[in-house]
Amino acid sequence: MASRLQSPLRLVARQAGTILARTPVWNRPVTWATRVAFSTNAHHFFAAPHGKVAFTAGKYPHIERNKDFKMLSEEDVTYFKSILAPSSITQDSEDLETFNIDWLNKYRGQSKLVLKPSSTEQVSKILKYCNDHKLAVVPQGGNTGLVGGGVPVFDEIVVSMSNMNTVRSFDSVSGALVCDAGCILEVLDKYLEERGYLMPLDLGAKGSCHIGGNVSTNAGGLRLLRYGSLHGTVLGLEVVLPDGTVLDNLSTLRKDNTGYDLKQLFIGAEGTLGMVTGVSILAPKRPKAINVALLGLDTFDQVQAAFMRSKNELSEILSAFEFWDKAAIKLVKEHLVAGANDPLESLHNFYVLIETSGSNKEHDDEKLNTYLESLMVDEVIQDGVVAQDTTQIQNLWAIREGIPEACSKAGAVYKYDISMPVPVLYQAVEDMRARLVQSDAYGDGKLFTSVIGYGHVGDGNLHLNVAAEEFTAEATGLIEPFIFEWTAGHSGSISAEHGLGISKNNFLHYSKSASMIELMKRFKKMLDPNGIMNPYKYLPDK
Amino acid sequence: MASRLQSPLRLVARQAGTILARTPVWNRPVTWATRVAFSTNAHHFFAAPHGKVAFTAGKYPHIERNKDFKMLSEEDVTYFKSILAPSSITQDSEDLETFNIDWLNKYRGQSKLVLKPSSTEQVSKILKYCNDHKLAVVPQGGNTGLVGGGVPVFDEIVVSMSNMNTVRSFDSVSGALVCDAGCILEVLDKYLEERGYLMPLDLGAKGSCHIGGNVSTNAGGLRLLRYGSLHGTVLGLEVVLPDGTVLDNLSTLRKDNTGYDLKQLFIGAEGTLGMVTGVSILAPKRPKAINVALLGLDTFDQVQAAFMRSKNELSEILSAFEFWDKAAIKLVKEHLVAGANDPLESLHNFYVLIETSGSNKEHDDEKLNTYLESLMVDEVIQDGVVAQDTTQIQNLWAIREGIPEACSKAGAVYKYDISMPVPVLYQAVEDMRARLVQSDAYGDGKLFTSVIGYGHVGDGNLHLNVAAEEFTAEATGLIEPFIFEWTAGHSGSISAEHGLGISKNNFLHYSKSASMIELMKRFKKMLDPNGIMNPYKYLPDK
Repeated sequence: MASRLQSPLRLVARQAGTILARTPVWNRPVTWATRVAFSTNAHHFFAAPHGKVAFTAGKYPHIERNKDFKMLSEEDVTYFKSILAPSSITQDSEDLETFNIDWLNKYRGQSKLVLKPSSTEQVSKILKYCNDHKLAVVPQGGNTGLVGGGVPVFDEIVVSMSNMNTVRSFDSVSGALVCDAGCILEVLDKYLEERGYLMPLDLGAKGSCHIGGNVSTNAGGLRLLRYGSLHGTVLGLEVVLPDGTVLDNLSTLRKDNTGYDLKQLFIGAEGTLGMVTGVSILAPKRPKAINVALLGLDTFDQVQAAFMRSKNELSEILSAFEFWDKAAIKLVKEHLVAGANDPLESLHNFYVLIETSGSNKEHDDEKLNTYLESLMVDEVIQDGVVAQDTTQIQNLWAIREGIPEACSKAGAVYKYDISMPVPVLYQAVEDMRARLVQSDAYGDGKLFTSVIGYGHVGDGNLHLNVAAEEFTAEATGLIEPFIFEWTAGHSGSISAEHGLGISKNNFLHYSKSASMIELMKRFKKMLDPNGIMNPYKYLPDK
Repeated sequence: MASRLQSPLRLVARQAGTILARTPVWNRPVTWATRVAFSTNAHHFFAAPHGKVAFTAGKYPHIERNKDFKMLSEEDVTYFKSILAPSSITQDSEDLETFNIDWLNKYRGQSKLVLKPSSTEQVSKILKYCNDHKLAVVPQGGNTGLVGGGVPVFDEIVVSMSNMNTVRSFDSVSGALVCDAGCILEVLDKYLEERGYLMPLDLGAKGSCHIGGNVSTNAGGLRLLRYGSLHGTVLGLEVVLPDGTVLDNLSTLRKDNTGYDLKQLFIGAEGTLGMVTGVSILAPKRPKAINVALLGLDTFDQVQAAFMRSKNELSEILSAFEFWDKAAIKLVKEHLVAGANDPLESLHNFYVLIETSGSNKEHDDEKLNTYLESLMVDEVIQDGVVAQDTTQIQNLWAIREGIPEACSKAGAVYKYDISMPVPVLYQAVEDMRARLVQSDAYGDGKLFTSVIGYGHVGDGNLHLNVAAEEFTAEATGLIEPFIFEWTAGHSGSISAEHGLGISKNNFLHYSKSASMIELMKRFKKMLDPNGIMNPYKYLPDK
């Protein structure tokens, strides 16, 4: 523990009542750039998660291969060889592994073929052929999803977007960026950084995830509080429908009221209606100033109070309001997540990470200072630090971004991603923990080792992680459908930002009415009558 | 002219080179509230536009009544009387006028029946009956649209949402507001003002327009630059489909990735797929400080330069960047729009209205001052004033919001609402003017009296108004399809925020590809197989 306290952070206020504003703490300009560099590293930490595969090919308990789908033949491969370069076709069983297993090592398919088209035209030809021959397809981006949506279930052909990674255009007046779907989020952000802009979304997987995957899963992440969802920031899409039709709607216009906004249907459709091949997105100007503070709090009521005040006092410069609980920080400390050193002296029940970003450092400093001072004086927070330089900013973010890694090291992790009204956000964690304790399944040497809560307070989005010894039917049965029922009972969504994939498709009725699901099925049927696009997922089996 | 200079505005800088920052100009707090009060008045001014009706019943040159639609019978009325209160049914021919004629006095239908349901259940019964009996329907909100989308073409039944105007809930933690579709935008904004929030959209028609109409037309308006489009801010919708099915998706969650985001399809669908009966929308916190400045500039290049700098220097506090040209200000002066007094000493080729809103008045003042100072020093602007109090803020906004009124007094006004890349924004006006001059149709005593350009620079959205002596085929032919071709040739949209209605549906191909239009038709066919919802509009006739 001692070593953590020797962190380079200047702790500006260690005890309640200390006035933060008295210390002139900001003496170096901190730019957004460092945040990016840091997160890259954070993502790399994620590369070696828990090694157990929960479901393997043919072992999904509730699914059978759809017999309507054709089995891949040599003839099919010959066709694909006629339209793609040899290097764009993967059949080697070892190479296929990467595409068959998801990042969490939880889902595994047995695809025998990966295609990597390098143009929209090639995607169109592939899908048309697959549709004509009833060959099932899984679109795959960076394969960083958490619900098994991007890997095959059986023998679907993987269409990877990794070869489509070119920026097509950027308008430095409006900030409209047009690019291939296979561009990596972080690469795009660096591209924009050089031009004074930034991507309106940011997430831990940025070093691997594709923008096409972000769009297809309606990724939320860390900047949603400030820049809103992709439904607002995506200006246009290029989508290939299952029959090969290319919907060319790569508009760069901020306003366009000519007809149904078709692109919206593909945002968050997880590749079940077609493949997103190109994205036009509105980039905001890159903030000139950034501040990050870490706070220690006693209760979730205090977290809420701090959030409400931040909306009032930090208002337009607030860019992140993240929280995690004591269980989360314990795991981060226990598993020594690289770069994530807790600068606070003692353990707290709750932690809040606040980020501000704006155009004037002095103004931002003053706003943040006034805000933190009032929190200290009113004893809303028990402790707090403000990062003094880029390294310290990186360190504070490393704690937050290290939580998923720490959880994955804690065992087999059941991950839930729910949204609900902020006041009941943490009750979900408490109720889950109480349930497991009551079942006598929680504690040392028992089925469950930890229940962790963290997430985006500003978005009412909780990441509830339950660490178990291993993935078993018994463990699953104790958590599900309890957590989904709990969420539905609190007007929440069973998937805030991770999507449905194969892990939540059959729980959709907890969040959507029968008439909504019925209409979704009609859309699916209309656009993908053969059901070849990402089958077995997203919509309920029945 | 002299009287205008006696305006109560303190002119802080009349000549290029004068340093605005030297004058301590901000001495009174100005709140957002005043902006609202002002705009209400502005809207009332709009109530008596140009009196000529361009198209009257049965006189649309290109449309015939769809014979598949049933004619209204006494039996039908008897049914509606069985489900609605007597006061919710209008059959009196004088009363029907209001619902048959649009606000511009340009479009006129001959509906014999207006229904005003007071519940979603009633809407459901009405639509189911109409669908079963093939009675055509026009959903109508505040009837403030500009493209003839909200009034009947022939004898369609008008379903007015005016009786559905209740706030259903408001969450003061998240800012999620849930209300009936018939709530008036300004009423909602006042409701939120009392709770420290504001509506994320604002437009001149706020005193009359319904939130349901705003959603159905994807209204843009004056705050889009800051808070984004309704595709991002609408959290959920309640929609009645033509067959009477109620899609209950009034989510109040900021994040919800459970299935296709169906609500998005109804945003901007102009009532052609179903009727929006309830809206859930995310309200931002009401800014504590507001500043408004009016600038005079020589060239559109300078307007662009001022805009680019504002993105850099005002950044997170920028809430509006509007412009208009000399032709616009001349009309405003000529028609003495109430409340709109130009405080600048001489006429300028271009005017820019900048609004900032933020959480700290001192900070905002300093940012704006620094920004304006740099514009003066670098001679990007020739003159400029900053409002000192709420009256002055109102006065500056009155100029901008008085332009449509002034245009409507100038004759029969052809209104276009196009978006395109900012650099070519004003070229559209110049090219149109040149074309009319060349045709020898422009000038005193000629067909056209004025070509006016104004709009939202930040959104790349130009309102191009052409004032003619009267609406004639010859006049129309000189403007259309030229303006649409011009827009398509500059990668623009032929309808940025006004929608398609009956005035632009047949020009859709200028902005959307054949495959996009084809898919739109399939969506329409799927959801409204009998085509009863707002017929003859939105999608092309053929």
